[in-house]
Amino acid sequence: MTKLKEISENISPIDKDIMNTAAARLDSLVKPIGSLGRLEELAIQLSGITGNLYNSFEKSCTVIMSADNGIWEEGFSAVPQFITGVQTVNFTKGRCGINVLSRHANMDIKVVDIGVNGDINHPDIENRKIRKGTWNISKGPAMTREEAVKAVETGIDIVENLVQQGYKLIGTGEMGICNTSTSSAVLMAFTGCDVDVAVGKGAGLSEEAFHNKKAALVRAIEVNKPHKEDALDVLSKVGGFDIAGLVGCYLGAAFLRVPIIIDGFISAAAALAAAKINPLAKDYMIPSHASAEPGYILLMKELGLEPILNLNMRLGEGTGCPLVLNIIEAASKIIKEMATLEESMIQDDFLVDIR
Amino acid sequence: MTKLKEISENISPIDKDIMNTAAARLDSLVKPIGSLGRLEELAIQLSGITGNLYNSFEKSCTVIMSADNGIWEEGFSAVPQFITGVQTVNFTKGRCGINVLSRHANMDIKVVDIGVNGDINHPDIENRKIRKGTWNISKGPAMTREEAVKAVETGIDIVENLVQQGYKLIGTGEMGICNTSTSSAVLMAFTGCDVDVAVGKGAGLSEEAFHNKKAALVRAIEVNKPHKEDALDVLSKVGGFDIAGLVGCYLGAAFLRVPIIIDGFISAAAALAAAKINPLAKDYMIPSHASAEPGYILLMKELGLEPILNLNMRLGEGTGCPLVLNIIEAASKIIKEMATLEESMIQDDFLVDIR
Repeated sequence: MTKLKEISENISPIDKDIMNTAAARLDSLVKPIGSLGRLEELAIQLSGITGNLYNSFEKSCTVIMSADNGIWEEGFSAVPQFITGVQTVNFTKGRCGINVLSRHANMDIKVVDIGVNGDINHPDIENRKIRKGTWNISKGPAMTREEAVKAVETGIDIVENLVQQGYKLIGTGEMGICNTSTSSAVLMAFTGCDVDVAVGKGAGLSEEAFHNKKAALVRAIEVNKPHKEDALDVLSKVGGFDIAGLVGCYLGAAFLRVPIIIDGFISAAAALAAAKINPLAKDYMIPSHASAEPGYILLMKELGLEPILNLNMRLGEGTGCPLVLNIIEAASKIIKEMATLEESMIQDDFLVDIR
Repeated sequence: MTKLKEISENISPIDKDIMNTAAARLDSLVKPIGSLGRLEELAIQLSGITGNLYNSFEKSCTVIMSADNGIWEEGFSAVPQFITGVQTVNFTKGRCGINVLSRHANMDIKVVDIGVNGDINHPDIENRKIRKGTWNISKGPAMTREEAVKAVETGIDIVENLVQQGYKLIGTGEMGICNTSTSSAVLMAFTGCDVDVAVGKGAGLSEEAFHNKKAALVRAIEVNKPHKEDALDVLSKVGGFDIAGLVGCYLGAAFLRVPIIIDGFISAAAALAAAKINPLAKDYMIPSHASAEPGYILLMKELGLEPILNLNMRLGEGTGCPLVLNIIEAASKIIKEMATLEESMIQDDFLVDIR
């Protein structure tokens, strides 16, 4: 039995009993029933995931999967491919968006080179390179099925190591020029949606480049004919090493009963692929912000999730994870620290002449 | 010249020059232009408010205005009126929703009795009582015009004191049984909207009570005929001491060039009233979460603001303020701590064989 099979087929459902206990506790607190809305739902979900009524997430980490994509050679991206490697190294220097936001949230990052087109030799970057970038999906498959399995298993392995180190919550991030393209292709493959639904223009694309990007993705589907019932077929044909690695993170976190945060469009495409492998994985996922990428809405709909933050962001890197961590921590404190209605109804000497 | 007139007529526009500097700095950072969306807009707004490119908000405080409302005697509320006083005292005990969330965010609270129906004598509650609750708005005005002015000036005064104590950011909160009713009436008075748009059923109301609440609010508008061009007329006729107090908080914060967070429905109704007194006040406001109260959507539309958090909350107390503070702080760190694109493009020895 491969590791992927062993992990993905042994994900437990979240614990409904403790969720009922959590819901009852929340209903007993000093507030109108349900009035803390999503915070209450999060607290209940966290209980179900970990099996504990009370949770805290002091030690949390966002995994950043860095990889290059062969479709870059189609030439529609305004960004040179070497930026993937440059930015991957930049993550170790503490001054990228994900660094600033992670420091703010007291969250760690784990940078993984799972397929950057070039050699990176850095003590703070884990070298798990499958290959120096995928092949061009508009001409054929991104990778072999064996490579896809290896990438997913890499993600599982990374999360296993983090959990072993005491991390209680995982975030998902990525870096890879053209990975919005591969994510759009994954979305199209799974849902059969039109290219206009799946592809955003972003900020950097000209009209011509936008047209070329869409044409390349239509070709990617036509040439590869990915089977939507076979997530590994979709990942290997039109995905990327970063997406496949994140799929492993979702499966690994679910297997280990650790909550995992979805960042933006690429991260959500990986979440959908993980949910296709085992729908139970969905219950361990927590969405963060509503990405500005248009296909994101459809991804959330497919996952049955609703984003918490409305920030119109489209940076990637995992930047939504540290931002929503604060809300997750707030939810876990509400259930633990609020007084019950009963405790609160005790009147005291400070209240004179009331009633 | 009354204090209200002096403050409200001397609100400065936010500083466009420093906002341009902030926008240019953000565009120079290591990210696609605009890709941090709302965080960038917030950083620019904060610069414009304070006049400083870089800001930090270690010392921040949510003002909780507590008051009772005469319309409670109509009997549609399922909650006894004395709960306003009980809960006001509970805020000093550290275990209400606003306490847990404020502690989590390292934000202080300032509890003000501006009109609770009863005597509260507590060292941690500021006694600024205008009267023991308003009159029943479904039968006549809530208060005299003089009382409305006094309540607004109380809010100004509270914010002045906080800023003098070094607070750099203000949140708005409230406690008062039936203050969703008065807020709905304020919304109806300003916009002329239908009662069905302005009034929510909430969780606690039966069909009959819901019908009675709406009928009482329709009567409140008919009986009082508030003039929508005269915000003090609206506040005195169909508002409440809590709402009027918060109006003063918004005006005071804008006058003193301090950002102020809008919480939920009641707080947003007060924000609209403040914006009617001086539209410049709007630029100093930061919305937090999308309240589950239906009228909230129209209030945001009137204010031209979009909420940041999608949490389906309807507790009040100011609970949205500590939750969004984390996002505001994140925005102020992004502009300060991220590297520029230029600084980030320096390749180093860790990158081998790239390009």
